[in-house]
Amino acid sequence: MKVGFVQNHPEFGNVQANLDRIEEMLAGKAADLFVLPELFSTGYRFKSMDEAHHYAELVPDGITSNFLLSLAKKNNTHFIAGLVEVEGDRIYNSSVILGPKGFVGRYRKIHLFDTEKSCFDAGTDVPPVFDLDGIKVGVMICFDWRFPETARSLALKGAEIIAHPSNLVLPHCPQAMITRCLENRIFAITADRVGEEKRIPGEKLTFIGQSQVVDPDGNILVRASETEEEVHIVDIDLEKARDKNLNPKNEIFKDRRPDLYC
Amino acid sequence: MKVGFVQNHPEFGNVQANLDRIEEMLAGKAADLFVLPELFSTGYRFKSMDEAHHYAELVPDGITSNFLLSLAKKNNTHFIAGLVEVEGDRIYNSSVILGPKGFVGRYRKIHLFDTEKSCFDAGTDVPPVFDLDGIKVGVMICFDWRFPETARSLALKGAEIIAHPSNLVLPHCPQAMITRCLENRIFAITADRVGEEKRIPGEKLTFIGQSQVVDPDGNILVRASETEEEVHIVDIDLEKARDKNLNPKNEIFKDRRPDLYC
Repeated sequence: MKVGFVQNHPEFGNVQANLDRIEEMLAGKAADLFVLPELFSTGYRFKSMDEAHHYAELVPDGITSNFLLSLAKKNNTHFIAGLVEVEGDRIYNSSVILGPKGFVGRYRKIHLFDTEKSCFDAGTDVPPVFDLDGIKVGVMICFDWRFPETARSLALKGAEIIAHPSNLVLPHCPQAMITRCLENRIFAITADRVGEEKRIPGEKLTFIGQSQVVDPDGNILVRASETEEEVHIVDIDLEKARDKNLNPKNEIFKDRRPDLYC
Repeated sequence: MKVGFVQNHPEFGNVQANLDRIEEMLAGKAADLFVLPELFSTGYRFKSMDEAHHYAELVPDGITSNFLLSLAKKNNTHFIAGLVEVEGDRIYNSSVILGPKGFVGRYRKIHLFDTEKSCFDAGTDVPPVFDLDGIKVGVMICFDWRFPETARSLALKGAEIIAHPSNLVLPHCPQAMITRCLENRIFAITADRVGEEKRIPGEKLTFIGQSQVVDPDGNILVRASETEEEVHIVDIDLEKARDKNLNPKNEIFKDRRPDLYC
């Protein structure tokens, strides 16, 4: 199957322009699944929960979901992409999962990073694994990487691919995702953004790009630059993720010793 | 405090020569804790459980433990080091923990790699954390790194340092240990060996060296070469491992969501 990511540079708050740019970047690009960054259509640094609320969308009835649904149908692809979600009086840093047949599901980030705690409510549902035409895809968002239990839980529930919309400002995640793939024998698609945001005086956020696809042997199949908008598509062989054997004697899930773990 | 490792090149089966070489390498070297490789005094590739049994030692009454006890007293230091242990009719790939006051404890490897399954029994006890004069040290051995639950369990039980005797033949562990340190905010001391073993026709094992000390921010404080015998000692500030805050809003253990993990 073909999987890809978009590494974009959104203009804060200009949702329509950011969506138009995604459509432009994806013109003529074909894959079974595209992963887009966390909060790809709004930008990242909300000043408050009130500001996040202003940009928040119903899922799947908001502008971003509708745009992706339309593009998924037109291009016959799936999208996993980050947005600000509102439900009742709650605001979430979410990812939507959509395909040519419509809305598939959502994930609300459970590990909020730094000032996100002032802008979003933490998700209360278990990170999900979706069946996309027979392919098992788990979803986590950005800082979730830091907690090995997130990827582990998704892999134990059958995820063959982890889709990982991100807005990375610390340097460690691209290398750490190699560990996540090795320890779980999964593919991981991290879609990050580039550019800077200076929405708070004295606080400059620089996003590190380096979106990537990593395979279950820890090989980086493709890694984008630190600064440019890019789209990449790679062919992956899912059998690699379905085979948890390292060698004839080690099957890494059967080798686990949960009785001896905290 | 000062911590160090020995990266050695044992001659298979020549225990006394290998111990003598360790004493030579450590002459004039002072640290509070030294980590030595897995199976450092015998070499790695036993052909069978019978052969492992031939080299197996009682703990702490065998030649390797006695050597380390004597050196720990003489040099006023602690050792965490790998050896083949026998207890009754069981053979373990173990690490011993010893200090100037005597024997502290043992750990029997719970995740056996590849042909080790034909030579050793898997440990049945939870990986331990020891209090060495007020410093909390957890122990895991080589392939245990591949299972995030091992380091996680040690860190959740209070380990500030993970001592990690190893005999690495795959390339991934040195980088992956950075992830282990970041996700747990701990120090990790991986003591690996160098050289080759060709004990089975058609099977050559090349050990990758690169013993290292990594800090809770993922910095490599020192990393040895891939081929040479080396001793390194670094100063570490344990307060870094005791502080689980990434920033004023993220304390990585309090941020865990165990109710949502598999």
